[in-house]
Amino acid sequence: MVLYSKNIVLENEVREGFIEIEGGRIRAILDSWDGPFADYGDQVIFPGFIDIHIHGWATGSFWFEKTAEAVLEMCRTLPYAGVTSFLATSGADSIPEIKACIHAADTAWEKTHGEMNEAGAEILGVHLEGPFINPKYKGMQREECCIEPSLPVMEELYGTFRHKELCRHMTIAVERQGAREVLDFCREHGIQTAIGHSAATFAEITAMKDAGIGGVTHTYSGMRGFHHRELGVVGAALYYDDLMCEFAKQTGLTVSHEAFDIAYRIKGSDRIILTTDCSGLAQTQTEFDHYIRQMKFVKDGDRLRIDHYDGRQEWIDPHDYEAVRHMEMSYAESVQNMAAHTKVGWLDIMKMTSLNPARYIHVDDRKGKIAPGMDADLTIMDTELNLVSVYCRGKEYRR
Amino acid sequence: MVLYSKNIVLENEVREGFIEIEGGRIRAILDSWDGPFADYGDQVIFPGFIDIHIHGWATGSFWFEKTAEAVLEMCRTLPYAGVTSFLATSGADSIPEIKACIHAADTAWEKTHGEMNEAGAEILGVHLEGPFINPKYKGMQREECCIEPSLPVMEELYGTFRHKELCRHMTIAVERQGAREVLDFCREHGIQTAIGHSAATFAEITAMKDAGIGGVTHTYSGMRGFHHRELGVVGAALYYDDLMCEFAKQTGLTVSHEAFDIAYRIKGSDRIILTTDCSGLAQTQTEFDHYIRQMKFVKDGDRLRIDHYDGRQEWIDPHDYEAVRHMEMSYAESVQNMAAHTKVGWLDIMKMTSLNPARYIHVDDRKGKIAPGMDADLTIMDTELNLVSVYCRGKEYRR
Repeated sequence: MVLYSKNIVLENEVREGFIEIEGGRIRAILDSWDGPFADYGDQVIFPGFIDIHIHGWATGSFWFEKTAEAVLEMCRTLPYAGVTSFLATSGADSIPEIKACIHAADTAWEKTHGEMNEAGAEILGVHLEGPFINPKYKGMQREECCIEPSLPVMEELYGTFRHKELCRHMTIAVERQGAREVLDFCREHGIQTAIGHSAATFAEITAMKDAGIGGVTHTYSGMRGFHHRELGVVGAALYYDDLMCEFAKQTGLTVSHEAFDIAYRIKGSDRIILTTDCSGLAQTQTEFDHYIRQMKFVKDGDRLRIDHYDGRQEWIDPHDYEAVRHMEMSYAESVQNMAAHTKVGWLDIMKMTSLNPARYIHVDDRKGKIAPGMDADLTIMDTELNLVSVYCRGKEYRR
Repeated sequence: MVLYSKNIVLENEVREGFIEIEGGRIRAILDSWDGPFADYGDQVIFPGFIDIHIHGWATGSFWFEKTAEAVLEMCRTLPYAGVTSFLATSGADSIPEIKACIHAADTAWEKTHGEMNEAGAEILGVHLEGPFINPKYKGMQREECCIEPSLPVMEELYGTFRHKELCRHMTIAVERQGAREVLDFCREHGIQTAIGHSAATFAEITAMKDAGIGGVTHTYSGMRGFHHRELGVVGAALYYDDLMCEFAKQTGLTVSHEAFDIAYRIKGSDRIILTTDCSGLAQTQTEFDHYIRQMKFVKDGDRLRIDHYDGRQEWIDPHDYEAVRHMEMSYAESVQNMAAHTKVGWLDIMKMTSLNPARYIHVDDRKGKIAPGMDADLTIMDTELNLVSVYCRGKEYRR
């Protein structure tokens, strides 16, 4: 299979050419091609978007459902959101619940692993967001499950993985007792770490820098804010060049466009990773209070009830993709929205959506750029950044 | 008179050469010179530092004493701090007290105006820091004197100036009722305006941008802080490229070095003005509580008493320059201190200390750069940024 475009976003340039795909991988980038090809004209071919912080999407939620089926449902639908691979992200739940998540990820991975898999977006592993976070900055996590970092607990969680390479990323409050031991463990086992849901002071982060912290989770949100004498987590994220800043959904909802723009001017596209932090809200198994949106999502038999703070109620079928896909901003929409408010070029978008996350979670041997030998993961948008088509390991997903 | 250096900091380059001075002005920058000259070797000749936010210095305080003699004392001693011209800065006092300040500035200006004046540093005018500021962010200003912006009061203050060109700068809380009328008046009368001691939201500042606000006073301090959904004054200062950020004393005391560095990375040396915001603490006429330093300065007969919060007491002669000059960090020391923590070159320092403030308060027809026709105001430092010598309108001040 061969794809043509005037605008193929490579690692260091945007060029015209043909992408030859074979066996789910990119075989070559060619100047000319004599055979048949799919003509994308001036549409922009990005390496596939990688979402390293996603709990759930539309009809499936790893976080809420904790089943392999939920993960497979995410794999199936995420290409329609522009995403070709992802880290299934857990939350601060009880240890048995997190272990259930790990089992679900292992099982889903087993079912979808192999050449020419047609399951859709690829699960690259798990992002453990907690349980070692600070209840002071719990955000929408469960306070009673925010526990102090513990090496035995970390070992237990890691031990639960049947496929160790799926344990890829952990968000942790580095100021809490025991954090250093957990950070050391993560570094030794190739698990990326990020500061998040954290009350750490600038000095506490500075003292812990040598433990190999890689970044900051949903920068600005769920952390000690910036003050000019106590820079907090936000100040450290901006100040330290080597910390990668993850941003979730640039909707202007959780982080204002201007606040993102300020961070962008300091960090640049080399040090920012875009994620969605989507939950798959419709899949809540109990009830979920979204204080920013001012609505509560409640499981009501086999339907989802939305209780608005102003008293209105709605019912939705949680298994109807069309009905629920607009409940959260998709990855592709987030990219478009971000680009509408901050001056970014296609190369910048490529870095923040694919190259940076691939390197960050150490899958850059096969993901993160359009180059020979890489997985044929492609996200194709028009020049206005509307999603056109997605290829996951060579198979096209288009609605 | 001719000065030689390997390192003369011009507007766009650092060059070797000779500065020819005549009649208090720079006559020429020369490649070679046959006559006698003062040899500064590799010492760095900057255009004279301009402090647009200084209430008092060591043995004289415009703010506390409100006399022409206090201003003349500042003129006499400021060259030893590296400063060649300044705006005498008032505070939030009662209207009669501010009028006394204006009279003092007028009188001092009359006594020192004219060719070849040898009074030392030049008073360029007055910076009215208040009274139109917000008591919520009063800092060390008097709460009862923080009043709502009022056009009649502004007209009364402006009317008090015998020399209208001395009314050069006003710090104002732009969110307060009546601010637009005062801002309009200032723009019409060539008075620069800056947001300070302000609780303004980002939206309030955005709505007021068309009124011609020029900058932000002591950025970070005395203002609504940064939050990622409500950017406040700090966020507006960082976000809007056309707002000039004034920073007071980069000691790491009021603003941490890292917080300054973050602002520097966004604003750059083209959009920052360094000031001291020194008070002349020894000249307090009553008592002055410095909550950041944790000490209280008290007038005790003809001596100054310092009551430390920990119970210790000291007495100092407020008229002994050597005894009091270290009570606050000087302009020259602030520059050295700032450069020790942020990567700035000599051209950057020149902009933040001289070119930017000269343009900001509209004295760039004669101040702010080393060029033919400009006043011969020069601040000379060694390559470690230790102060060596200062020239004010051609006259050397060296201790």
